[in-house]
Amino acid sequence: MIIDKLFESVKNKGHVCLGLDTDISYIPEKFYNKYESITDAIFEFNKKIIDETLDVAACFKVQIAYYEAYGLKGLEAYKKTLDYLRNEKAIIVADIKRGDIAKTAEMYAKAHFEGDFESDFVTLNPYMGFDTIEPYLPYIKEKEKGAFILVRTSNPGSKHIQYLETGNERVYDVVGNKINEIGKQYLGGHGYSSIGSVIGGTTAFEGQEIRNKLDSTFFLIPGYGAQGGTAKEVAEYLKKGNGAIVNSSRGILQAYKKDENGENNFQKSARKAAVQMRDDILSAIGD
Amino acid sequence: MIIDKLFESVKNKGHVCLGLDTDISYIPEKFYNKYESITDAIFEFNKKIIDETLDVAACFKVQIAYYEAYGLKGLEAYKKTLDYLRNEKAIIVADIKRGDIAKTAEMYAKAHFEGDFESDFVTLNPYMGFDTIEPYLPYIKEKEKGAFILVRTSNPGSKHIQYLETGNERVYDVVGNKINEIGKQYLGGHGYSSIGSVIGGTTAFEGQEIRNKLDSTFFLIPGYGAQGGTAKEVAEYLKKGNGAIVNSSRGILQAYKKDENGENNFQKSARKAAVQMRDDILSAIGD
Repeated sequence: MIIDKLFESVKNKGHVCLGLDTDISYIPEKFYNKYESITDAIFEFNKKIIDETLDVAACFKVQIAYYEAYGLKGLEAYKKTLDYLRNEKAIIVADIKRGDIAKTAEMYAKAHFEGDFESDFVTLNPYMGFDTIEPYLPYIKEKEKGAFILVRTSNPGSKHIQYLETGNERVYDVVGNKINEIGKQYLGGHGYSSIGSVIGGTTAFEGQEIRNKLDSTFFLIPGYGAQGGTAKEVAEYLKKGNGAIVNSSRGILQAYKKDENGENNFQKSARKAAVQMRDDILSAIGD
Repeated sequence: MIIDKLFESVKNKGHVCLGLDTDISYIPEKFYNKYESITDAIFEFNKKIIDETLDVAACFKVQIAYYEAYGLKGLEAYKKTLDYLRNEKAIIVADIKRGDIAKTAEMYAKAHFEGDFESDFVTLNPYMGFDTIEPYLPYIKEKEKGAFILVRTSNPGSKHIQYLETGNERVYDVVGNKINEIGKQYLGGHGYSSIGSVIGGTTAFEGQEIRNKLDSTFFLIPGYGAQGGTAKEVAEYLKKGNGAIVNSSRGILQAYKKDENGENNFQKSARKAAVQMRDDILSAIGD
């Protein structure tokens, strides 16, 4: 199961999920100008970051919106980035947040688990119901693939739907419990399911409660750094130091902007930021 | 406002939103084999359908999943289809169901309202909250763009989240009311907003109630034909015969499979099916 590979990667490298949300404004101008096409500039920037952080990132999360924004040329950079990561045996989370049903969802599953845009995990949006997940299940069962379903996010708007009270629980509880239940059919050797959940990390109250309730759900926790989450909060969502990856994108990709002459060695700044994040989380677990 | 163009298109041509969910299995083999690339085969099939139905379709809905599934080559066909539709002055609904926030949503807005994948309307998923809509607003206000937000769908799983009771209403009521409220800031001359809602058409109970409550919301109603919706149900969601478009995809694209020698003239069968659908809805309104 792919989730076992992720568990072991976290055990060996720490919790950092390095987000390659590569906006062109993040690429140092001098570096950007070396390349003929936007495809190459984005891909070569990503490659430098990947080469320098492979040993400190448990996985890489590629946010497809940043590539879609540049049309076919952007998506060519997306494909090249995925190919490179796969070749380096890195674990890839495609942050696509697709959410559709039936034949349409089958097409999304084919798009992101096969062919040009093949990844290891996808993120999915459950608003249309739990039938949004079905077309991905054959891949999860037979093809070493996995998914993280949006349960509770940390943006201000998360209150609008996810936090609505229904009966004795909130909408996100209904979703989280159901994902945990469905996930039990796809458990790996370490007790976690290849169907995980996205749980925003900036609201740490309930961390331990959620961790205990969703006992076999692996978490993808966004919102570290740039969005305000802290290592101490993240530690609340772990069990024996594992069971979650923590994403940081801008905080790592743009770390060079805080370093003197950083633009000449942006990948070193990225590494330093990733190492620091890894160590902050590890030390918060120790506390 | 783009919504006025759509309103007028419905007035002139009827309610058919023709879904170009072009799976390669829908393309007659003989036609498919004429083309060197999958890109050309998909695009030329779409072009034949578009040419034959421009005067009977109020708009065209392009489901991006079907194109993403074929990777870069599929998305090239997607771009060519959008370019062709735009050139023919057809109104384009990009069925992307993206749902993200902040910078990521800005990138999706840029992706689908500018550049290679420019469309007139996008569909959006509100699970993360109403801040998912914000990055699209400048385009809606200033650039003749619009959006349809998922409110209530008609798949079996719609019961899992959308129908949950919260206070005295359901989740989809909360969403529908809020979209109607936000939409009032973007009203066109016919009283409808450029921010519309996706409302599944197969559960007609409440049709008139929803229509009255969401008074300025234009509806995109999926689920006609292949998914089981009928003209009589659709009519319940209209006000003075307007205020909604009704999507059919497979029922039109594959209509030729029911006609003798249909594969030699698939576009004629598609036209016949679209005309029939248009007339069925118009006659249900008359009842």
